[in-house]
Amino acid sequence: MCELLGMSANVPTDIRFSFAGLARRGGDTGPHSDGWGIAFYEGRGCRTFHDPEPSARSDLARLLRAYPIRSRVVVAHVRRANRGAVSLENTHPFTRELWGRSWSFAHNGQLKGVKKLPLGRFRPIGTTDSEHAFCWILGTIADRWTALPPPRRLDAALPDLFARLADLGVFNVLMSDGRSLYAHCGKRLSAITRRAPFGRATLIDDDLAVDFSAETTPNDVVTVIATRPLTRDEAWADLPIGETLALRDGERH
Amino acid sequence: MCELLGMSANVPTDIRFSFAGLARRGGDTGPHSDGWGIAFYEGRGCRTFHDPEPSARSDLARLLRAYPIRSRVVVAHVRRANRGAVSLENTHPFTRELWGRSWSFAHNGQLKGVKKLPLGRFRPIGTTDSEHAFCWILGTIADRWTALPPPRRLDAALPDLFARLADLGVFNVLMSDGRSLYAHCGKRLSAITRRAPFGRATLIDDDLAVDFSAETTPNDVVTVIATRPLTRDEAWADLPIGETLALRDGERH
Repeated sequence: MCELLGMSANVPTDIRFSFAGLARRGGDTGPHSDGWGIAFYEGRGCRTFHDPEPSARSDLARLLRAYPIRSRVVVAHVRRANRGAVSLENTHPFTRELWGRSWSFAHNGQLKGVKKLPLGRFRPIGTTDSEHAFCWILGTIADRWTALPPPRRLDAALPDLFARLADLGVFNVLMSDGRSLYAHCGKRLSAITRRAPFGRATLIDDDLAVDFSAETTPNDVVTVIATRPLTRDEAWADLPIGETLALRDGERH
Repeated sequence: MCELLGMSANVPTDIRFSFAGLARRGGDTGPHSDGWGIAFYEGRGCRTFHDPEPSARSDLARLLRAYPIRSRVVVAHVRRANRGAVSLENTHPFTRELWGRSWSFAHNGQLKGVKKLPLGRFRPIGTTDSEHAFCWILGTIADRWTALPPPRRLDAALPDLFARLADLGVFNVLMSDGRSLYAHCGKRLSAITRRAPFGRATLIDDDLAVDFSAETTPNDVVTVIATRPLTRDEAWADLPIGETLALRDGERH
């Protein structure tokens, strides 16, 4: 099992508070010590950081906790390897370019027989089930459209593909093209949407609190999705098993 | 104009010394203040760092100068924008997956009319001539082979593609699939191969010296390629204009 963290917001938002909680689970308050990674979208660009070291002890993770990258879409993952060796190429999130967009993908779970799914143009670099699943999804949608379709078309198409993968095992996933954040709950995902009036929140995994009212404007909308709630004093909602969320600008679509 | 830095080595090697010199040219000893990026290969994995901030003043660049990532192939770039806005998606090196390998590409120069070259499956995310050229190269070789060809086939094919691009303007380039480092000199590139007996070297752009004999074993072979020599006390050789080098394990092939 691994832990996922995703964010969709209507303004560039600092993810450091949530990432600090997730990073502690990477070998400290959690057993997910086989690497971690994070993808931040900034406009059409996507900046990724990957480290096969445990996030709780990673120099790079320490830098990121101090580095105010502001982003509207974030996909992050701490890994506990079950399939595929601990190595850089097996570290989520995976990224690929399709239709001139940078796509990212982070998965939690095991997928029995996923490597029998036929691949098109996208090929795994590492050996995980997860990267194979990602390549299969992208190859399937690449065959369906020759150029970037409107978000609503993808919103309609992706749940069926996610459901096919969920039939193979546990498929909790976060995936983004930088416009939308897609989240599929195969077994466990929780979400919270923060909007005015903003309050205060305290991490479960660290002695760290933040007063969001001091960091936001009244129009900000920020949805955070995580395997397990990251804060102790907010009302996280579990996603129903089998549900796919499509988020844009922090809102569900 | 931009500045390039590439490395090919037969053992995982610390690039920090050379990167320190390059980073100074990003807004300090040089005018290349429109972002920087670096790709490190580790096995089949590839770790990239990109920042639209000047490398001489970037927090991320400061971290990397302190962070001992050891790699056998490195591609780095500091940018002075001439085409394409200063933004994350226009920051080299660009990366794409082809045949289950991570490819990276960094370019210095301008290419008149390059955007008329037809693209296949690979599409630019940003707006630079350079990324268009990279997508054209990858699309062309993707049409030629359905799976990763032996290095010698690529060694034979790439110089012709590089020469076609060089006809459009200035084309100094570094490109890698993680096995080979390809360097094409359109106007200016210098190279040095370090091997036993290792000596001492001092950066041109910073008050920093290193004694390679203390950091290496007698079998190490490391070739560094840069737009301009990075050290003041070593014998860098200018590459002939129009020449393509193919490097593996630090050696020319």
